[in-house]
Amino acid sequence: MNKKAVLKDVQAEPDSRNLYIDKVGVKDIKYPIIVLDKVNKTQHTTASINMYVDLPHSFKGTHMSRFIEILNEYRGEITVNNFSEILKRMLYRFEATTAHLEVEFPYFIEKMAPVSEAKGLMEYMCKYSGTLGEGNKKDLVLQVIVPVSTLCPCSKEISERGAHNQRGLIKVAFRFKDFVWIEDIITKVEGSASSPVYSLLKRVDEKHLTEQAYDKPMFVEDIVRETALNLMSMSEITWFRIEAENLESIHNHSAYAFLERTL
Amino acid sequence: MNKKAVLKDVQAEPDSRNLYIDKVGVKDIKYPIIVLDKVNKTQHTTASINMYVDLPHSFKGTHMSRFIEILNEYRGEITVNNFSEILKRMLYRFEATTAHLEVEFPYFIEKMAPVSEAKGLMEYMCKYSGTLGEGNKKDLVLQVIVPVSTLCPCSKEISERGAHNQRGLIKVAFRFKDFVWIEDIITKVEGSASSPVYSLLKRVDEKHLTEQAYDKPMFVEDIVRETALNLMSMSEITWFRIEAENLESIHNHSAYAFLERTL
Amino acid sequence: MNKKAVLKDVQAEPDSRNLYIDKVGVKDIKYPIIVLDKVNKTQHTTASINMYVDLPHSFKGTHMSRFIEILNEYRGEITVNNFSEILKRMLYRFEATTAHLEVEFPYFIEKMAPVSEAKGLMEYMCKYSGTLGEGNKKDLVLQVIVPVSTLCPCSKEISERGAHNQRGLIKVAFRFKDFVWIEDIITKVEGSASSPVYSLLKRVDEKHLTEQAYDKPMFVEDIVRETALNLMSMSEITWFRIEAENLESIHNHSAYAFLERTL
Amino acid sequence: MNKKAVLKDVQAEPDSRNLYIDKVGVKDIKYPIIVLDKVNKTQHTTASINMYVDLPHSFKGTHMSRFIEILNEYRGEITVNNFSEILKRMLYRFEATTAHLEVEFPYFIEKMAPVSEAKGLMEYMCKYSGTLGEGNKKDLVLQVIVPVSTLCPCSKEISERGAHNQRGLIKVAFRFKDFVWIEDIITKVEGSASSPVYSLLKRVDEKHLTEQAYDKPMFVEDIVRETALNLMSMSEITWFRIEAENLESIHNHSAYAFLERTL
Repeated sequence: MNKKAVLKDVQAEPDSRNLYIDKVGVKDIKYPIIVLDKVNKTQHTTASINMYVDLPHSFKGTHMSRFIEILNEYRGEITVNNFSEILKRMLYRFEATTAHLEVEFPYFIEKMAPVSEAKGLMEYMCKYSGTLGEGNKKDLVLQVIVPVSTLCPCSKEISERGAHNQRGLIKVAFRFKDFVWIEDIITKVEGSASSPVYSLLKRVDEKHLTEQAYDKPMFVEDIVRETALNLMSMSEITWFRIEAENLESIHNHSAYAFLERTL
Repeated sequence: MNKKAVLKDVQAEPDSRNLYIDKVGVKDIKYPIIVLDKVNKTQHTTASINMYVDLPHSFKGTHMSRFIEILNEYRGEITVNNFSEILKRMLYRFEATTAHLEVEFPYFIEKMAPVSEAKGLMEYMCKYSGTLGEGNKKDLVLQVIVPVSTLCPCSKEISERGAHNQRGLIKVAFRFKDFVWIEDIITKVEGSASSPVYSLLKRVDEKHLTEQAYDKPMFVEDIVRETALNLMSMSEITWFRIEAENLESIHNHSAYAFLERTL
Repeated sequence: MNKKAVLKDVQAEPDSRNLYIDKVGVKDIKYPIIVLDKVNKTQHTTASINMYVDLPHSFKGTHMSRFIEILNEYRGEITVNNFSEILKRMLYRFEATTAHLEVEFPYFIEKMAPVSEAKGLMEYMCKYSGTLGEGNKKDLVLQVIVPVSTLCPCSKEISERGAHNQRGLIKVAFRFKDFVWIEDIITKVEGSASSPVYSLLKRVDEKHLTEQAYDKPMFVEDIVRETALNLMSMSEITWFRIEAENLESIHNHSAYAFLERTL
Repeated sequence: MNKKAVLKDVQAEPDSRNLYIDKVGVKDIKYPIIVLDKVNKTQHTTASINMYVDLPHSFKGTHMSRFIEILNEYRGEITVNNFSEILKRMLYRFEATTAHLEVEFPYFIEKMAPVSEAKGLMEYMCKYSGTLGEGNKKDLVLQVIVPVSTLCPCSKEISERGAHNQRGLIKVAFRFKDFVWIEDIITKVEGSASSPVYSLLKRVDEKHLTEQAYDKPMFVEDIVRETALNLMSMSEITWFRIEAENLESIHNHSAYAFLERTL
C-alpha cells in the first residue's frame, strides 16, 4: 500500500516549543473586490489583501488554504459593513482567538474641476485594517492617502515673486464610532492643504488653483494641524493619525510631519 | 482691464529651437477599466495608463488635458478591439503624426486546482502598448507576466534527495496577426515551466504539484526555450520576446534568460 | 529699501492652534555612510535617512536645514556607538523634547560557501531606529532582513519525491542591553531556517544545501519559533519582533508569521 | 559506490531544441563598488548589477557561479575605464559571443548652495550598460537621473500671482566617443531646468531659487529641448535619449516628454 494514500495533516501535529504565535497567514493576495461608493452605491476595484490569525503554542501550523476559501465566500463584496462578519468567519474556521484582515485598494471618485466643472476621476489609495480579538473585541482602522498641493509660506514671504510649491501626500488613519464615508474624509483633508489636485483641469481651473495655493501657503506642520482640526470637528471620529509628506520641489528629499490623537 | 481676462494659450506659441519631440504626454494615470474576458465576456479592473503624441518642432507645447478627455470618452471599455480607435482619436485631437497608448492592469482568471478542482482567482499583470504612426501604420504589443514554479535540474541530478525550486516569473511580449486571448497565452506559458502556481490548493493538489515539478526540472534557459517553442506553435503570433526570472531559493539574486524572435 | 533685505523667519512665528506635533523633519535623505564591521572594523555603504523632532504647540514650524547640517557634522560615521550623540545633538539644535533618527542601509558580509569555501558577498538590509526623549530616555531598535531558504514539511511528508521550497525573508527587530554585532544576529537567524542562502555556490555546495534543506523542513510558523528560541538564548537581547515571509513557490502570494516578545 | 560521488555537469549537456538564447545570467546582484569621482578620485557606493552572456543553441545551460567569480576579481573597482576589460573577461570565461554588464548605483556629489555656499551631498542615480559583441564590437551607454525644479509657463502667464511648480526628474542616457565626467553631464542637465535642487539650503538660497525658477518657466517639452541643445554642444557625445517627468503639483499623474537623437 502506498504510504501516501492518506495524506498526513502535518500542520495539525502538536508543537512542544511552547511558543504562541501572534499572527500567521497569507500576505499580498491580489483580488478583485466591490466596495461601497457614496454616489454610485458600489464600485469595482482591485485589492491587495492580508489575512492572519493567531496560533496557540500547542499547534505546529495553520491551514493556509482556508484563508483563500473564506475570501472566495465573500468575493462579491468587502465593505465596512461586512468586515466584522469576515473576521468572525476567520475566527470560526481557524478556531483562533484573534483574526486580522487588511485590504488595500485604489478608490476612484469623480471630481469636478473648480471653475470649468470638467469631470475627471481621481484615485485615492485606501486601506481597511480590522482585528477581532478575545471577548469579541473589534478594532477597525480606515486609512486613505490624499494627494494635495502645498505652497511654502517661507518661500512666499522672503521671495520677490513666486513661491515654491509641490505635490504633497496626506495619509490619514482613523477609528470611528459611527459610519463615515471615505468621500467625506477626503473632502476634509483636501480642505487642509494649499489646494486640492485634480486629474482634469482646463486653463481657467489652473489659474484658479495657482492663485488659491498662493493665497493659502502651508508648511507640512500647518497641514497636519489643519487636518487635525478638521477631523476633530467630525463627531464620528474617536482617534486619528495624520502623516503629511511634501515631495519638496527645491530638494530631492521629503519634508514630513506626524500627529496622532485620541479624542 | 484685467490682463488675464483672456487666458493666453502658451502651449500654442511657436518654438524656434527646431527640435521635434518624439513623445509628449501624461504618465501613470490611474483609471478603472473594463477589458474583454474569455469566460465572462468582460472584467472590471484598474489600470495605470500612459498616453503620448509627437510634437512638431514648430510648437512650444501640448494641451495635456486633452489626454484625460479622450480617456473619459472611452471610460467604459479599453480592449484590444478599440485600441486603434483610441489611438486614432489621439491623432485627431492633437493633430499629431504618431500616438502611443500604454495600459497596464491586473487581469484575474479563475483557475481550478489540478486534483481537488478547488477554484481560486489568479492575478496576471498585463500590458497593452500601441502605436499609430504615419500612413496609419499600427503596432500593437501585448505583454503578460506569468508566475510559475521552477525546479533546478542540476540540484536534482547531484543531490541524494530533494531539489531546490522557487517561484519564477515569465514575462512574454508578443505581436500577432489574428486575435489571441490572453488566457490562451497564459496556458501555453504555464505549460512551459516545472509547474503552474495557484491561489488555492488542497493537500492532494500540493502533492501533485510537488511531484510534477520534481519530474520536470527546468533551468531558466529551458523555460525560455520551451516557452519559445510553445509560442512558435501559435500561427497568430508574428513576434515575441520572452524573459524568465527565477527568484532563486539558494541565492538572494535572480537567474535570468531572454529570448526574442521574429517569426 | 528692499522689503526682503532682512529675510523674515516665518517658522519661528507663534502658532495659535494649540496643537503639539509628535514628529516633524526630513524623510528619505540619501547619504553615504560608514558603519562598524565586525571583521573589517568599518564598512562604506549608502543609507536612506529620516530625522524628526517634536514641535511645541506654540511654534509654527521647524528649520529643516538644521537636520542636514547635523548629518554633515557626523558624515564620517553613523554607528550604534554615536547614535545617542547624534540624537542629543538634534535635541540641542532644535530645542526639542524628543528626537528620532532612522538609518536604513545595505550591509555586506563575506560568506564562505559551506563545502567549497568559495567566498562571496551577501547583502543584508539593516535599519537603526533611535529615539531620545524626556529625561534623556533612550530607545534604540536594530533591524535586519535575512534572506533564507525554506522547505515545506507538509509537501515533503505527503509527496512521493521532492518537496516545494522557496526563498524566505526573516525580518528581525530587537532591543538590547549590551552591544550585539549584526553578524551574530544574522548567524542565529540563518540557523533558524531550512538552509542559509549565498551569493556564490559551486556544485558541491548546491548539493549540500539541497540536502540540508530537505532534511530540515520548516513552516513559516517553525521559522518564527526557531528564531525566537535562538534570540532568547542571547542574554544581551531584551525585546524582539520576528516576521517571516515565504515567497511561496506554489502560490503567487506569501505565507507570513509574526512573533513579538519582551524578555 | 555513491552515484553522486562525481557531480554531473548538467549545464554542459547538449541541447537539441535548436534555440539560441540572446541573454542568460544573473540579475539584481547587490555589491559594494568603487567608482571614479572627478573631485575625490574615487567614491565608495553600492550597486545593483546584472550580468548576461549569450548561449549557443547546442548547450543546455550556463554556469551561473562564474558571474559572481568575475565580479569578485574586480571587487575593488568598476569604472568606465575597466568596463571593457570586465566584459572581455566574461566572453573568455563563458566562451560566449556577446556579454552584457549593467551596473546601477547612487553617486554622491557635494554641491554648494547658490548664495550661502553651504555644502550638502546630492544623490544622482547612475547606470552603466555595456555590451561586447562579435568582432570585439563594444557599446557603452551611461545614464543619470537628475532631479530638478520646474515651473509651469502657462500657470505663470495666466495667473495673477504665483505659478505652480514641482520636482521633475530628467533621465539622460548617452553614448560618447571621448570620456565624459558624469559631473559635467549633471551640470548641463541642471542648467536645462527652471532651477536645480539641493540637499542643504538656507533662507537666502531658498529666496534665490524661488525667484530663479519663477524667472525661467519651462514646460516638460522645454526641458527635453533645452537638455538636447546642451548635450548637442558637447562634442564627446554621439547619441542621447532624454526623458523628462514632472511630478505635477496640480495633478496626481506626471507630465512626460521623450527626445532621442543620434548626432
